[in-house]
Amino acid sequence: MDQHRRRNEEEAEVENVFNSEEGYDKEKKKKQREREGGGEEEVLSVETAFENKPIPSWRRQLTMRAFVVSFVLSVLFSFIVMKLNLTTGIIPSLNVCAGLLGFFFVKTWTKFLEKFSLLKQTLTRQENTVIQTCVVASSGIAFSGGFGSYLFGLSERIAEQSEDTNHGFKNPSLSWIIGFLFIVSFLVLFSVVPLRKIMIVDFKLTYPSGTATAYLINSFHTIEGAKLAKKQVRTLGKFFSFSFLWGFFQWFFTAGEDDCGFAHFPTFDLQAYKNKFYFDFSATYVGVGMICPYLINISVLVGGILSWGLMWPLIENKEGDWYSKGLDQYSLHGIQGYRVFIAIAIILGDGLYNFFKVLTQTLSGLFHQVRNREMTINLPIADQDSPLISNLSYDDQKRTQLFLKDHIPTWFTIAGYVTIAAVSIFSLPHIIPELQWYYVLVIYICAPTLAFCNAYGCGLTDWSLASTYGKLAIFMIGAWAGSAHSGVVAGLAACGVMMNIVTTASDLSQDFKTGYLTLASPRSMFVSQIIGTAMGCIISPCVFWLFYKAFDDLGLPGSEYPAPLAVVYRNMAKLGVEGFSALPKECLLLCYIFFGSAVVINLMRDTLGKIGSYIPLPMAMAIPFYLGPYFAIDMCVGSLILFVWSKIDKIKADNFGPAVASGLICGEGIWSLPSSILSLAGIKPPICMKFLSRTTNSSVDNFLGSS
Amino acid sequence: MDQHRRRNEEEAEVENVFNSEEGYDKEKKKKQREREGGGEEEVLSVETAFENKPIPSWRRQLTMRAFVVSFVLSVLFSFIVMKLNLTTGIIPSLNVCAGLLGFFFVKTWTKFLEKFSLLKQTLTRQENTVIQTCVVASSGIAFSGGFGSYLFGLSERIAEQSEDTNHGFKNPSLSWIIGFLFIVSFLVLFSVVPLRKIMIVDFKLTYPSGTATAYLINSFHTIEGAKLAKKQVRTLGKFFSFSFLWGFFQWFFTAGEDDCGFAHFPTFDLQAYKNKFYFDFSATYVGVGMICPYLINISVLVGGILSWGLMWPLIENKEGDWYSKGLDQYSLHGIQGYRVFIAIAIILGDGLYNFFKVLTQTLSGLFHQVRNREMTINLPIADQDSPLISNLSYDDQKRTQLFLKDHIPTWFTIAGYVTIAAVSIFSLPHIIPELQWYYVLVIYICAPTLAFCNAYGCGLTDWSLASTYGKLAIFMIGAWAGSAHSGVVAGLAACGVMMNIVTTASDLSQDFKTGYLTLASPRSMFVSQIIGTAMGCIISPCVFWLFYKAFDDLGLPGSEYPAPLAVVYRNMAKLGVEGFSALPKECLLLCYIFFGSAVVINLMRDTLGKIGSYIPLPMAMAIPFYLGPYFAIDMCVGSLILFVWSKIDKIKADNFGPAVASGLICGEGIWSLPSSILSLAGIKPPICMKFLSRTTNSSVDNFLGSS
Repeated sequence: MDQHRRRNEEEAEVENVFNSEEGYDKEKKKKQREREGGGEEEVLSVETAFENKPIPSWRRQLTMRAFVVSFVLSVLFSFIVMKLNLTTGIIPSLNVCAGLLGFFFVKTWTKFLEKFSLLKQTLTRQENTVIQTCVVASSGIAFSGGFGSYLFGLSERIAEQSEDTNHGFKNPSLSWIIGFLFIVSFLVLFSVVPLRKIMIVDFKLTYPSGTATAYLINSFHTIEGAKLAKKQVRTLGKFFSFSFLWGFFQWFFTAGEDDCGFAHFPTFDLQAYKNKFYFDFSATYVGVGMICPYLINISVLVGGILSWGLMWPLIENKEGDWYSKGLDQYSLHGIQGYRVFIAIAIILGDGLYNFFKVLTQTLSGLFHQVRNREMTINLPIADQDSPLISNLSYDDQKRTQLFLKDHIPTWFTIAGYVTIAAVSIFSLPHIIPELQWYYVLVIYICAPTLAFCNAYGCGLTDWSLASTYGKLAIFMIGAWAGSAHSGVVAGLAACGVMMNIVTTASDLSQDFKTGYLTLASPRSMFVSQIIGTAMGCIISPCVFWLFYKAFDDLGLPGSEYPAPLAVVYRNMAKLGVEGFSALPKECLLLCYIFFGSAVVINLMRDTLGKIGSYIPLPMAMAIPFYLGPYFAIDMCVGSLILFVWSKIDKIKADNFGPAVASGLICGEGIWSLPSSILSLAGIKPPICMKFLSRTTNSSVDNFLGSS
Repeated sequence: MDQHRRRNEEEAEVENVFNSEEGYDKEKKKKQREREGGGEEEVLSVETAFENKPIPSWRRQLTMRAFVVSFVLSVLFSFIVMKLNLTTGIIPSLNVCAGLLGFFFVKTWTKFLEKFSLLKQTLTRQENTVIQTCVVASSGIAFSGGFGSYLFGLSERIAEQSEDTNHGFKNPSLSWIIGFLFIVSFLVLFSVVPLRKIMIVDFKLTYPSGTATAYLINSFHTIEGAKLAKKQVRTLGKFFSFSFLWGFFQWFFTAGEDDCGFAHFPTFDLQAYKNKFYFDFSATYVGVGMICPYLINISVLVGGILSWGLMWPLIENKEGDWYSKGLDQYSLHGIQGYRVFIAIAIILGDGLYNFFKVLTQTLSGLFHQVRNREMTINLPIADQDSPLISNLSYDDQKRTQLFLKDHIPTWFTIAGYVTIAAVSIFSLPHIIPELQWYYVLVIYICAPTLAFCNAYGCGLTDWSLASTYGKLAIFMIGAWAGSAHSGVVAGLAACGVMMNIVTTASDLSQDFKTGYLTLASPRSMFVSQIIGTAMGCIISPCVFWLFYKAFDDLGLPGSEYPAPLAVVYRNMAKLGVEGFSALPKECLLLCYIFFGSAVVINLMRDTLGKIGSYIPLPMAMAIPFYLGPYFAIDMCVGSLILFVWSKIDKIKADNFGPAVASGLICGEGIWSLPSSILSLAGIKPPICMKFLSRTTNSSVDNFLGSS
């Protein structure tokens, strides 16, 4: 799930906005596209519409206000992503939301200045792109920092839950996390820059998410688009407030340790609630459901029904046979073991399948690219002085010209990479002693290749395999270190290094594509990424720290923030080091079956054509195996709302669906800020909304009557 | 509140539909209206639009299907009215709803028959009016039967609550209630018929509600109107289903005796909940709030805040001083006494003021009518053969002609009245021994006069004073019988006789006005009223019986159906018999103050002009004095929804507001049928949604953990 970067629905809408500008070279381009074998998606002449707008120099694209807005948005998104990390680990694309809000904030700021005649510069597309890039880079750290997965998996609390304290742990602390992130995150910035030209200009990779973002930003700066954006922002604002107030309202009813409040509403009866089938009134996940494609929501629900509706009850019948009686509900030797390890099996099966699939595509794509180039030599191996080649469209000509103008020297990137690599090889073992310097060296030698693979794969398929690479690192470094030398901790730390590298590689490439399509200078993008990454390295740990300090039960199953992937990652590492000996009876067999099924299902999805596209995604099915289907129900409610809406009014649903969803996600996400502050200040909610069965209720009534 | 029959908002809309038909004699009529001194509201030429539609004979207006539909709707509305009776006693006008549903059912039935080519007769306006009349007559009994007021006030349960068992009681039972209603309800049918011509043709009284209903029915039978009606029915259906399902959903969470479920949701904290400030998620009262004018909703809220927010807490501080400590929460010697008697004081003050006001208006109106007639003699003292008089509009000519054609002979009505009066003077004392035959005789001698007064007043002001007449009967007969001879029971029974007479008088006159405006024959109306009344006399007691048997705590304060007016009526009767001796300290003074305030406030409303129309209605303020403001919050939510809606889209809100409101009211109202059946079958809801303060919750958690 966390590997998902999807094409956003608003792309279609944005294309609509540009329909009027299709203009003069449509026919020409169509032919060109046919010649190129459909390598590029439908492109309309956007730049003619912007012809009379000057493009600021790269320095002028980097304005103070852009970074102020970016900082505000980074904090906002870090909270949202952190909340999602720690509740389910499912993180939808928030690009639209970032785009809309960035535009809105700067516009508001601009208007404010205009009133006092202080305005020096109107908001350009390029500046907008800079904001977007900075926010994505910064809030990306909240995901790739692994606060919901490997990094929190290092902690004692998760180790205890995994009954794995003898393998060592490293509790989170603000100082080492910031240090770790700084060292790890900057490296790849330098390795991606040289790839930039190859990926975008030479290979003309699609980068669907980056393209969608660019279309969005371009649309904001047309008159029609700005009007629509204004309305969308208003919609977003409404649902943001609603979601925030709803979160606030819910808070009042959550006194007491557990099972209080709307989040524990037994919508489908108490029996179903016990098996985690209930609607937990989370505006966030209803919004997530509206953004995620129908198939993902259905997959999550199917996974939930299969596991909590069918398998777990059946396995629980074997209590005393397959596993000993009377174990704690969350003991890994009991039913919880099945939940965790079967989820891991599916995630690994799906991950490995997709790894090989994308690898194959990458290699074959590369092969074709290179061969084509050799045969025809008509793709522009352009540098900044070369004349524009005639069979490129007007848009592409202009974009390529600008993209190559603000060159970043190769010596600069190589020097940067080597320096940072040296620093981190030296310093990382100081932060995490279990992570030997030679592990880091090996990772850094492989890193550019892996970064390239991921950036290329993502460009082709919009599918970042970051967490799969991370899992490979867990197993490889874990096995290398071995049980005796704290392989678990080393594995998890290696996962962190690896994930940061490959995530950044794909994210930055997406950003460069966005910049390419909005005529933003690569230099300003690069600076923005550096600043964004630096912000993220500070903001994300602080946000995590707030959650960690505010909620004592963070990471415990059944709590408000169970951080499911932390347990999963820890147990993967343990599995890599220890093998399968610790698994309860029949669990290994089930794991094999589900690992196999994940591969087979993916194979079916890819080979069965039309029918295959209706088959659920194994990766999406795995999350509820561990967590329970309650958030799946939220997401399906979101799907249902969007479905009904688009039946009633397709255009409106397409235009405002993402805004509504973003509002829902952001509002409740931001509520987690005051909520954690309240918790830190020791202010507790006053009421517990409790759900008691009739018999329990009457005994409680008696108890209350007598006391 | 129960005295309210208001002009419905849809009148405006319906007039819109007819705007195109304003036609030829607008100018002429305008002059005529000026001559008549504005006695008639704006009338447009409707009948030209219907000129080519034949009018069926009065026998053909009475079809089988009309009565089948009427029966179904009567059951539906009896449930709704009964539910409203027993929860707050506030009953909004359901005319629109009845009109829409009647039209919808017959249309559906007609379409169904058309498919099989069995259709003999299309639905005419006249048939529609017959259905409406029948349903109004039938469901009217659910109100005037006093199941939420005098009749239930006779029961032992209410007597116990009023600490008044020594004054006798008469528990409800299906047999005597049906008998009582049959005897009492038919009498007035015969006394109104002779008034018919005077009120409608001679005096040209407005009868706003009747006129509105007629406009509604007329509009259904235009092409545009039918289309709108179809859409309205669809809207109604949607909200009906929603409201019904919401009621069903809520049910699951109401296990346990009290304080379970959404109806006890402490929206504004537990402290506010204790003072009955909370939103109880009742779709019914949100709908009621949407139908009632803003002023009524605000009045109810103001009353609630004044009493439960201010006065009761202050009086409770005097516990031990003004009244003894440690009394039961619902003891009339304690705080409950203040609640009940101050509410009674306001109701009586308001009632008396309006009684004298309407009486004055009636007399002065009559005086003018008679003098005008003597002076000009140009009003049509038309019989069926007289030539049409030239200065009547086309519509009025046609209507008058038809209205007078199907004459009901005077000898028939006098014979009917005398026979039924004789039967009831003989039989009523057998049913309720405390009600001596001479009390009944006296009431029946006054009845025609009172019926005339109420019918005339209602025609002028749309304000039926039925319950005020009822209260007068309580005090007069109660005082006559005296404490020794069970004056309480006699008074309440006399109230029943009186209320049925005067309610029927005003309702029937409204119906005749509707019939006049839709060209329905007075004969078919009369038959329809008889059949409707008969239906009501059987359906209403059965529905009440279902509630009574299904809910053991019916009529107890704090329960789901507290039947507030039953206690109020019982205590009025007790007050009339016993005087003020039983009141707690300072209560009498407060009662005087509030009685006086009610009169003064009404006086201010009538004299201050524009400002006066913003002053709250005392009658509306009285209900929450006893019940608490929770339903006022529902109603204000309804107001707010309507207000926002009409700000966003005035036309849509006007057209569909009443349909939405009706849907909300009907859906939850009908849910009370399955809910009472479930209760009778002993099926109890499975879950209790409980709200505990943090400290209580932790002790409950300990208790549950230890057991």
